[in-house]
Amino acid sequence: MLQSLRTEVYEANLELVRRGLVIYTFGNASAIWREKGLIVIKPSGVAYEKMTPADMVVTDLQGKVVEGTLRPSSDMATHAALYRAFPEIGGVVHTHSRHATAWAQAVREIPCFGTTHADYFHGPVPVTSHLTREEIEEGYEANTGEAIIRTMSGLDPLACPAVLAAGHAPFCWGKTVTDAAHYAVVLEEVAAMAWQTVTINPAARALPDAQRDKHYFRKHGAKATYGQGDC
Amino acid sequence: MLQSLRTEVYEANLELVRRGLVIYTFGNASAIWREKGLIVIKPSGVAYEKMTPADMVVTDLQGKVVEGTLRPSSDMATHAALYRAFPEIGGVVHTHSRHATAWAQAVREIPCFGTTHADYFHGPVPVTSHLTREEIEEGYEANTGEAIIRTMSGLDPLACPAVLAAGHAPFCWGKTVTDAAHYAVVLEEVAAMAWQTVTINPAARALPDAQRDKHYFRKHGAKATYGQGDC
Amino acid sequence: MLQSLRTEVYEANLELVRRGLVIYTFGNASAIWREKGLIVIKPSGVAYEKMTPADMVVTDLQGKVVEGTLRPSSDMATHAALYRAFPEIGGVVHTHSRHATAWAQAVREIPCFGTTHADYFHGPVPVTSHLTREEIEEGYEANTGEAIIRTMSGLDPLACPAVLAAGHAPFCWGKTVTDAAHYAVVLEEVAAMAWQTVTINPAARALPDAQRDKHYFRKHGAKATYGQGDC
Amino acid sequence: MLQSLRTEVYEANLELVRRGLVIYTFGNASAIWREKGLIVIKPSGVAYEKMTPADMVVTDLQGKVVEGTLRPSSDMATHAALYRAFPEIGGVVHTHSRHATAWAQAVREIPCFGTTHADYFHGPVPVTSHLTREEIEEGYEANTGEAIIRTMSGLDPLACPAVLAAGHAPFCWGKTVTDAAHYAVVLEEVAAMAWQTVTINPAARALPDAQRDKHYFRKHGAKATYGQGDC
Repeated sequence: MLQSLRTEVYEANLELVRRGLVIYTFGNASAIWREKGLIVIKPSGVAYEKMTPADMVVTDLQGKVVEGTLRPSSDMATHAALYRAFPEIGGVVHTHSRHATAWAQAVREIPCFGTTHADYFHGPVPVTSHLTREEIEEGYEANTGEAIIRTMSGLDPLACPAVLAAGHAPFCWGKTVTDAAHYAVVLEEVAAMAWQTVTINPAARALPDAQRDKHYFRKHGAKATYGQGDC
Repeated sequence: MLQSLRTEVYEANLELVRRGLVIYTFGNASAIWREKGLIVIKPSGVAYEKMTPADMVVTDLQGKVVEGTLRPSSDMATHAALYRAFPEIGGVVHTHSRHATAWAQAVREIPCFGTTHADYFHGPVPVTSHLTREEIEEGYEANTGEAIIRTMSGLDPLACPAVLAAGHAPFCWGKTVTDAAHYAVVLEEVAAMAWQTVTINPAARALPDAQRDKHYFRKHGAKATYGQGDC
Repeated sequence: MLQSLRTEVYEANLELVRRGLVIYTFGNASAIWREKGLIVIKPSGVAYEKMTPADMVVTDLQGKVVEGTLRPSSDMATHAALYRAFPEIGGVVHTHSRHATAWAQAVREIPCFGTTHADYFHGPVPVTSHLTREEIEEGYEANTGEAIIRTMSGLDPLACPAVLAAGHAPFCWGKTVTDAAHYAVVLEEVAAMAWQTVTINPAARALPDAQRDKHYFRKHGAKATYGQGDC
Repeated sequence: MLQSLRTEVYEANLELVRRGLVIYTFGNASAIWREKGLIVIKPSGVAYEKMTPADMVVTDLQGKVVEGTLRPSSDMATHAALYRAFPEIGGVVHTHSRHATAWAQAVREIPCFGTTHADYFHGPVPVTSHLTREEIEEGYEANTGEAIIRTMSGLDPLACPAVLAAGHAPFCWGKTVTDAAHYAVVLEEVAAMAWQTVTINPAARALPDAQRDKHYFRKHGAKATYGQGDC
């Protein structure tokens, strides 16, 4: 199981490279083994082209390394906070992908402008508030996680599997790390479309609720009709 | 014939991938065999890299599967509605390509700003109105087709082979599915140029009618002079 | 000579594909053999992947085919007009490249905002006026050439080797067709930068004249210092 | 040592090509051998695909060629000025990369809008003033260096390893030419994000100082925690 999680985390990291979401050592992906309370995460600052599944770092739920000789990603504590707060998620992905990061830097939520968005996110992709100086200076990464968790208050993490950290970049999650990487790719596309939408029409409005629901529930939940019934 | 249609539909779907118009399982293409009243369409949610011509689904004009074990694309009913309304078309393509989708999300028609546009579309690419809650909740995909058909009222489907579904994305068509995919690619390019045009000059105006006509009829109709007389 | 011109024209056409300036059968390049009064040009509507040097069409200075079985590019008469008006040029390239076309559609000249521009174009890249209905309906392609020539009045064609045809797209030229294709690629880059420049700063101003001159004459004319003295 | 510097400079130049920062013969990279007072720099106007490490030109700190038969980059004097002014740097890179150049043309500094920026640049990326006519006409390249040096007054060159030359393009530097090329790539990404940020939110504000410091010092200086402790 740990072996297959390492491979899945490794593959999710590479997917981010292949899809153009990360350059150099940017970005990180992790997965959790709930039964054992173990997190498998990309090591910090290792080049993607040299990385192997064996380089993935294993930590406990506090982010303490329990296996591996490399340091975990510097965003470890954010991942750990999300796993503790959202028991339904199995993977977390963080990137600085260009378009989603532009919205994070603009400190604007991404409105649900269309069905591409609604097929994956059941409402706007929210943005956190800026952290306070105290939150930044002590426990920054854990406090980034807390800011995301506060922003998600009242929302279903699987129906809104992404948040923009203000002035920073997106964090995505899903039932698996493969899903989380998939959502990160779609989020980047949705962010690009939304940017162009507001340029073309600064008064653009969100999709009507009924259409948002129709698209979201075509792909998610008990009444989903998309796909072949097995995904 | 059914065999060659399957291959043509398969190839049109792959063309959308190659040209960067779709990611993951986004998008779908179909063709119709008019004499038999059969539609050949991409299956729902199957990865492009695993898809084969044999996976294409065959339905009747109501979208009922008559051959194949996979579910047809979730937009089946939209395709079927377009085939019933426009007897002159042989293929339909739907994508969420970035630039055209941004115009659909902005709920703005794409003005005919230049000759690239006029070479293919004899006027603006129109946008539908939003569907009502009732139209969304019951028969959404068929009603999307009806909204497109209403928007095309009074227009020649072959001279205006694309419509933007409001808040959703483009639908394109043509005499063949190969043509429909070609128009989808050109529409994406035209949408990108139009976005930049309105950024550079918010007061940009449509091409003079005479120039629009000159370009359109250089490539289309009895007096066309473009190409080698056989395409 | 004709053989080598065919190859050079063919290669210039392929360069436009490789650099992403054209899709499908868009765009065309030509060269002239001044001594014989012969123009070598891409055939109309032939797929780039099937084209060979032997497919290039040879015409006289009026655009009448003198060798080859294919029709010349539909923009033949524009090329011919430019060759007749500018005796110093040896090649012409026309594309619908995205960014330059957006400026043409916006009917705005591209200001000389920076040294990238000034390294190649000694001043703004001008835009023509729209043609009149009469000019469009009779002899459209030749009149497009005339509009470009009027716009170039008082300018040195080799110091301003590109014009935007209003509502249409750029035409570029140079001493050779290889140069013309090179300028088309640089124009596209310059157009992209200028679009972003006016988005970032709507009040952006042209480069000071002295800096424009410094850069232009570092690369052009008797006092050029760029390169290795042989290009 | 000279041999390995040639290779490193050659590789840094190729990195700019691979990352899409330069086309044709645009851009140049150099490194310095402090002990001997020798600069190794790309030759002027040589095609990247034909260049070899042996083509790199060796000059003294005034830019006078001491080894090699090719002319150095036309921006030689700017590189030399930067090496003389900033003893802590070992490499310089100059590109006309699209997004950073757009900011230079807009004559706007790139605000520190987010953590991607703060991971590399400890504050805004500044822009020089335009040179005077006199500075342009005599000793343009050296005066470009002087303008950059004036702009850097009071700043630590390693904490702000890039400046935009007004109306021109970025210059980057670092402890090594490999670092300088790396910063040029990141600057281009940061410039793209900042352009989109101001489009999405014209009132976007810089990252809070505490968060800027947190990110910058996670990767730089004695208390850095990013990576594996050896980079």
